[in-house]
Amino acid sequence: MQRSSERSIITLLSDFGSLYPAQMKGAILSRARDAVLVDIAHDVPPQDVRAGAFALMAAARHFPAGTVHLAVVDPGVGTGRLGIVVESGGHTFVGPDNGLLIPAARSLGVPEAWMIDQVFFEGASPTFHGRDVFAPAAAALASGAAPSSFGPRISPKELQMGSAEISEDWMEAEVVYVDGFGNVIINATEIPWDVVILAGRRLMRARTYAEAGPDEPLITIGSHGFAEIAVRGGSAEGLFGLAPGDRILLERGNCSE
Amino acid sequence: MQRSSERSIITLLSDFGSLYPAQMKGAILSRARDAVLVDIAHDVPPQDVRAGAFALMAAARHFPAGTVHLAVVDPGVGTGRLGIVVESGGHTFVGPDNGLLIPAARSLGVPEAWMIDQVFFEGASPTFHGRDVFAPAAAALASGAAPSSFGPRISPKELQMGSAEISEDWMEAEVVYVDGFGNVIINATEIPWDVVILAGRRLMRARTYAEAGPDEPLITIGSHGFAEIAVRGGSAEGLFGLAPGDRILLERGNCSE
Amino acid sequence: MQRSSERSIITLLSDFGSLYPAQMKGAILSRARDAVLVDIAHDVPPQDVRAGAFALMAAARHFPAGTVHLAVVDPGVGTGRLGIVVESGGHTFVGPDNGLLIPAARSLGVPEAWMIDQVFFEGASPTFHGRDVFAPAAAALASGAAPSSFGPRISPKELQMGSAEISEDWMEAEVVYVDGFGNVIINATEIPWDVVILAGRRLMRARTYAEAGPDEPLITIGSHGFAEIAVRGGSAEGLFGLAPGDRILLERGNCSE
Repeated sequence: MQRSSERSIITLLSDFGSLYPAQMKGAILSRARDAVLVDIAHDVPPQDVRAGAFALMAAARHFPAGTVHLAVVDPGVGTGRLGIVVESGGHTFVGPDNGLLIPAARSLGVPEAWMIDQVFFEGASPTFHGRDVFAPAAAALASGAAPSSFGPRISPKELQMGSAEISEDWMEAEVVYVDGFGNVIINATEIPWDVVILAGRRLMRARTYAEAGPDEPLITIGSHGFAEIAVRGGSAEGLFGLAPGDRILLERGNCSE
Repeated sequence: MQRSSERSIITLLSDFGSLYPAQMKGAILSRARDAVLVDIAHDVPPQDVRAGAFALMAAARHFPAGTVHLAVVDPGVGTGRLGIVVESGGHTFVGPDNGLLIPAARSLGVPEAWMIDQVFFEGASPTFHGRDVFAPAAAALASGAAPSSFGPRISPKELQMGSAEISEDWMEAEVVYVDGFGNVIINATEIPWDVVILAGRRLMRARTYAEAGPDEPLITIGSHGFAEIAVRGGSAEGLFGLAPGDRILLERGNCSE
Repeated sequence: MQRSSERSIITLLSDFGSLYPAQMKGAILSRARDAVLVDIAHDVPPQDVRAGAFALMAAARHFPAGTVHLAVVDPGVGTGRLGIVVESGGHTFVGPDNGLLIPAARSLGVPEAWMIDQVFFEGASPTFHGRDVFAPAAAALASGAAPSSFGPRISPKELQMGSAEISEDWMEAEVVYVDGFGNVIINATEIPWDVVILAGRRLMRARTYAEAGPDEPLITIGSHGFAEIAVRGGSAEGLFGLAPGDRILLERGNCSE
């Protein structure tokens, strides 16, 4: 997929914090010295596969075709869960088969998946497949290995991202990510009403944060395509006390409110 | 400005935390695949243009001529505020026209600025010009585009950094940054007295942190050229309860104190 | 050591947080433009040389021979402490002579060390040798300079990592690192009993985190080769209130407990 004159790009996403990503990078550069490594995020909430899937999906489409995405949010490491390679829209993904890779792959095309055969797990640390299995696989993919060289085709585990339940007067949604501004991103891709109520407070429906008054809460479709609750100059996370995984009820308000 | 055999360096600075910088990097690498990307900081306090300007100024001079600096601390995103390209001392800066780029540009030479024409904003996410306007502009600049290709010359918005008010017996200063050690950096480039009092406590005037006794507060000119209040083996941020934007009064002390 | 067609890898580790690492990177890229820069960690607890030594040791072995490791956790910056270059197992290390580099160097082979002559410190900021001395030295090493070009051979300061005291019925150990999951890593490389008690609680001895029940504490040999106390789906740091530098007593338990 890579033209030979180009350096391959490998993105990295995990819930590892700061100690372990460098070990994955060393494992990659030991095998694919010319790879260009780009961190997506390593502060995904620990073991929150859904939050990791959101972060990966929001970033993957902005990278050029040919990019390999290495993603590890992996509560089942060391158990019987499989490792997979997924190809979609010219991008390749590698990581655990727990749904993490699927929303990103679906956002780029029609995914095809291959399992990573058990032989690749031999000798690996039982607690760090990211370094000992998935990073070497990413290096091999970046160096031109075919996804089918890792094992047979499989149907990967699914994970739906944009699946809020919307009725005429209310929306039941789930918080999928809280970003560095305290903006609360939910699993909805539309805002069906002009006035939205959350926990008794009116959310201004806005196109930009600056449309709201100081400290005013608002709701907008964020740059990632998902609905996002924000507070101008403040933190919606703090105001509403929300965290990833929380379920919230949004209600249709009246324009006179 | 780049010799053709060299890879262009692009630095990135923002208040985005971890989710959005990777999307800017993808947007750059999709257009300038050989660019070398270096993060300056993405944990600038949210929407604190002055703190971001300080971090950019402290770092820019250490990069080689030809570097492109992409900086986005942008409370006015989606409003009528302009985007600009600034050239100074062989470095190029791109970001919002809110003063963020100016102290760094002034520290390197005599800045010249060009606006980024509205045509470059068409189709951009109203909440993420960093990814959809400034990152592509940085990639174009790194690939050899002239700053004047983005729009007409303008006078950019100003922002002064080193502007503490100093009299014979006191200094009124503003906290511009708190670093990872809890060292408190203020907008002064000199310490005019041998003994300095802050909030009733004597600050030892020191050349190095190790000159002070354990847990002793000190004041020094930091490696960035600005006055810095520190506590040996501790945190001045914690001891004095200071944050970026706070105004403080430093008083001249007696040597006998 | 580098083949001329390969880009040199330089890793960076510090306790600097986010503002200062970029300045070291600029200093490197101004001198060794083709270097590939990889962060190991910049959130080492401030001035905790032992925690930094652990993080460096855990990562270094995963990088290819020829890598230069720049590490700066440096409470004595500006004092008479020396700077050193250490070579071991085909890797080169540069930083302060305070033990920081030694466990990593020992993990790769038999270290040889050279001091960095005082001439290299002339004109350096007294508070930032990382940028003004060690980063330029790393760039020179990555460009082919010999370690002996910096000064004479010396015996570096020692630092032992895996030195828990183990008897038949108890182990006195020190916390060396707390990772992003709240896993508590201690200075022991073996777990001598089938049942381990910490602060009155039984730690399940496990090969993988998933072997424990929800919220159950466990002890395992981590991917870094050191004993690690964890809580499945939770934080051992939070449950036991532990931080780097804490001394703990582990006791041998009975299988019937």
